[in-house]
Amino acid sequence: MYNKLNDRIILKLEDIVGEKNFVLEESKLIDYSHDEFSLNEIHRTPEVVLKPANAIEISEIMKVASREKLPVVVRGGATGLCGGCVPFYGGIVISTERMNKVTDIDENNLMVTLQAGVTLKNFYSALKEKKLFFPPHPGEESATIGGVISTNAGGARAVKYGTIRNFLRGIEVVLADGTIIRPGGKLIKDSTGYSLLHLFTGSEGTLGIITEAVFSVLPEPEASITLLVPYTTAEDALSSVPFILKQPTRPLAIEFITKKIISIAEEYCGRHWPSINGEIFLMIIVDGNKDEIERYSEKTSEICMDHGAIDVFVADSNQKQEEILHVRSMVYEALKSATIEILDVVMPPNQMSSHIAFVDNLSLSHNVWLPTYGHAGDGNLHTHIMKQALDGKEIIDWKEKYKQLRKEIILDGISRGGKISGEHGIGLVKKEYLEMCLGVEYVNVLKKIKLAFDPLGILNPGKIFDL
Amino acid sequence: MYNKLNDRIILKLEDIVGEKNFVLEESKLIDYSHDEFSLNEIHRTPEVVLKPANAIEISEIMKVASREKLPVVVRGGATGLCGGCVPFYGGIVISTERMNKVTDIDENNLMVTLQAGVTLKNFYSALKEKKLFFPPHPGEESATIGGVISTNAGGARAVKYGTIRNFLRGIEVVLADGTIIRPGGKLIKDSTGYSLLHLFTGSEGTLGIITEAVFSVLPEPEASITLLVPYTTAEDALSSVPFILKQPTRPLAIEFITKKIISIAEEYCGRHWPSINGEIFLMIIVDGNKDEIERYSEKTSEICMDHGAIDVFVADSNQKQEEILHVRSMVYEALKSATIEILDVVMPPNQMSSHIAFVDNLSLSHNVWLPTYGHAGDGNLHTHIMKQALDGKEIIDWKEKYKQLRKEIILDGISRGGKISGEHGIGLVKKEYLEMCLGVEYVNVLKKIKLAFDPLGILNPGKIFDL
Repeated sequence: MYNKLNDRIILKLEDIVGEKNFVLEESKLIDYSHDEFSLNEIHRTPEVVLKPANAIEISEIMKVASREKLPVVVRGGATGLCGGCVPFYGGIVISTERMNKVTDIDENNLMVTLQAGVTLKNFYSALKEKKLFFPPHPGEESATIGGVISTNAGGARAVKYGTIRNFLRGIEVVLADGTIIRPGGKLIKDSTGYSLLHLFTGSEGTLGIITEAVFSVLPEPEASITLLVPYTTAEDALSSVPFILKQPTRPLAIEFITKKIISIAEEYCGRHWPSINGEIFLMIIVDGNKDEIERYSEKTSEICMDHGAIDVFVADSNQKQEEILHVRSMVYEALKSATIEILDVVMPPNQMSSHIAFVDNLSLSHNVWLPTYGHAGDGNLHTHIMKQALDGKEIIDWKEKYKQLRKEIILDGISRGGKISGEHGIGLVKKEYLEMCLGVEYVNVLKKIKLAFDPLGILNPGKIFDL
Repeated sequence: MYNKLNDRIILKLEDIVGEKNFVLEESKLIDYSHDEFSLNEIHRTPEVVLKPANAIEISEIMKVASREKLPVVVRGGATGLCGGCVPFYGGIVISTERMNKVTDIDENNLMVTLQAGVTLKNFYSALKEKKLFFPPHPGEESATIGGVISTNAGGARAVKYGTIRNFLRGIEVVLADGTIIRPGGKLIKDSTGYSLLHLFTGSEGTLGIITEAVFSVLPEPEASITLLVPYTTAEDALSSVPFILKQPTRPLAIEFITKKIISIAEEYCGRHWPSINGEIFLMIIVDGNKDEIERYSEKTSEICMDHGAIDVFVADSNQKQEEILHVRSMVYEALKSATIEILDVVMPPNQMSSHIAFVDNLSLSHNVWLPTYGHAGDGNLHTHIMKQALDGKEIIDWKEKYKQLRKEIILDGISRGGKISGEHGIGLVKKEYLEMCLGVEYVNVLKKIKLAFDPLGILNPGKIFDL
């Protein structure tokens, strides 16, 4: 299907990137065999890792790869959760780690140009110096720009600001045959031909290699307030959400999480949430000017109390807000060691409550802990399928249970008008459900697009669907 | 290249839509030969007009069209400005005029489902009853949902809220072979496969026929204020814009217009702007709660005065704001009779001032009036190429001058990192500049996408590019 590297090809590739940026040793290659997905049965070791400096070098690599029919997989922060950057057919891994420059902060146009390998952390800190703000916040800050575009990453702040694509203005992309194109630009509007910008966004490295991006940024908001609202039931908590969203001020985040999950995160990081009541929490964050968010905080507290909240904890200082967010951000790490897979089902927001009830019943009937939390403002829920029973003991036959549970949860989401992925992408591990979710005819359209861009199928093969 | 209709095909098509929804008379067909572009040399009469009721009928039509190789062009409100819905190769026009129902207003999910033929006017009025708000506002309210998606229409409010695609959640589309697919859904986030939703947005009817859409809507804002700010020069006016945008509150619109244009609109509609000073105006609209927008209005007035504004007129009552917007909305109609073409160049916002100076020089050196106005907050300018000299007299040899002027203005925009279209699309009349703007390799990628969706080239042929 694909060719293997030989000495002649290896010399050519080394020539393109230079000896220092070329990895061939088995012991080092293994570091590039996986992302954050837990099961090592999906790991694959590449034949070579290249660390190019720019789009021109990547173009040269792609010319070799397409001539020799070699699979090419791009790797950013490797923080993905579904095997998206695993080199499933071996071949070449292109690491963007050297392409880590914030090229231009254009304060007049409120736009920033970055290389694909810049981490979110470095992007945010470059902006902070200039008192600028990039609203999307996919949780893991070691993710890179190329990665978050390739999955159209979301995160908690999407309720007010939308996902990555809402702020993306331009990209530089290397195509399968080495052609370099630049969809978009420093442009806020663009109706000049099909939007390749939006087609590449969320295409998981299967249509081209993103090497640079231009993002819109905003001035820093004046202030923010975080409300922590404990409830007795998930149903009550979620019943508040439409009323919260019907106010003219829109919160940037409405997160849903359980007491049990937060307790484990508290234990993991040794810090604590300010509220000890309730079984279920909403965490509502609003930004804006001080008067407005104070007024908002009062009204929203009333709405929550009217819908069964036990009380409302208002964090208005930076320190208190940071405390809450820190514990929340530790959830993933705290659950990680016993997690098999984190699901990413997205559905119409009013379906969340019934879906969570479905998952809770499944958890009880199979005696598997299925901690579920997520973005209550936008219908995107994360269920961890755990190796643990409800009492915390390890499950022996978790492999069989896992397959059945994920299928049932995914199918329930689909039956509610939902889809498999709200922000993580499909990668390797969710593709078996793609046709079930979208239909055969729909997936055939996706395949035709793939073949139009990459007739040899060399770009990130085996991801999203099989050709 | 394409086949012509014959009696057998005509009977089949009539059978699909019914006799009443089938137009074959030459005298009626002529109404479907054009959009709002001024030159009748691009008009083409279709062989038949069909008025289907739904996607299923359109699917049947497309099965016939693909079997018989007949061109098919969809027509909504026909308010386009570049020949996008002109049936250039004759064949079938599908009018969406009967598909005019607001199917569902889902107040819990803040989403509205509409058929493609619903006009913006009817959409806005259906929302008003429920105190809901659809932020994008492409000027012409007789445009239809299918049309505004097909061009990714923008309008003045894009500064805060973005274009149509920011609010689009799902569509129903009939493909060239009659297959019906439903990208997106009642979903706020979606990373499940390539975003066909965003690929169809702005594809001008060349990849599929949009039959239904789901949009996110917002609660009505509490209040709004409009500032009318006269300046002596365009340079001063535009130099204020980055400072306006660096405030934490974002205005929904920052419009740029000249006194001369407004005077003609005033004369046309018999109503008047409240400010009589200055040569150039910024019109700044902000929405939000009352305290916030009052505070904003004060700060923004200061910024404008610091950058050369003559004074600031604040319209805070609905009546005063309506008066200002009404005169502004009459600009297009007032200029229409002497307009050859309205350009739609978009560029990095900080390039607008030099571009306008370029256009003004061109106007002087050729003695052709080139009224220019537009969306100063997002770099999207509309220059009317007129049949009038600067003194208002008709130009005899306007045809030759027109071609040269449009080329020079478009090329100047491109040279500033801009593109041909910010919101109107390419259609028939701007395609000659597409390769100049995007490059041959880029346009080849667009053509490959087109062929993947429509290998026979029957959907809106001759638009955006020639195959």
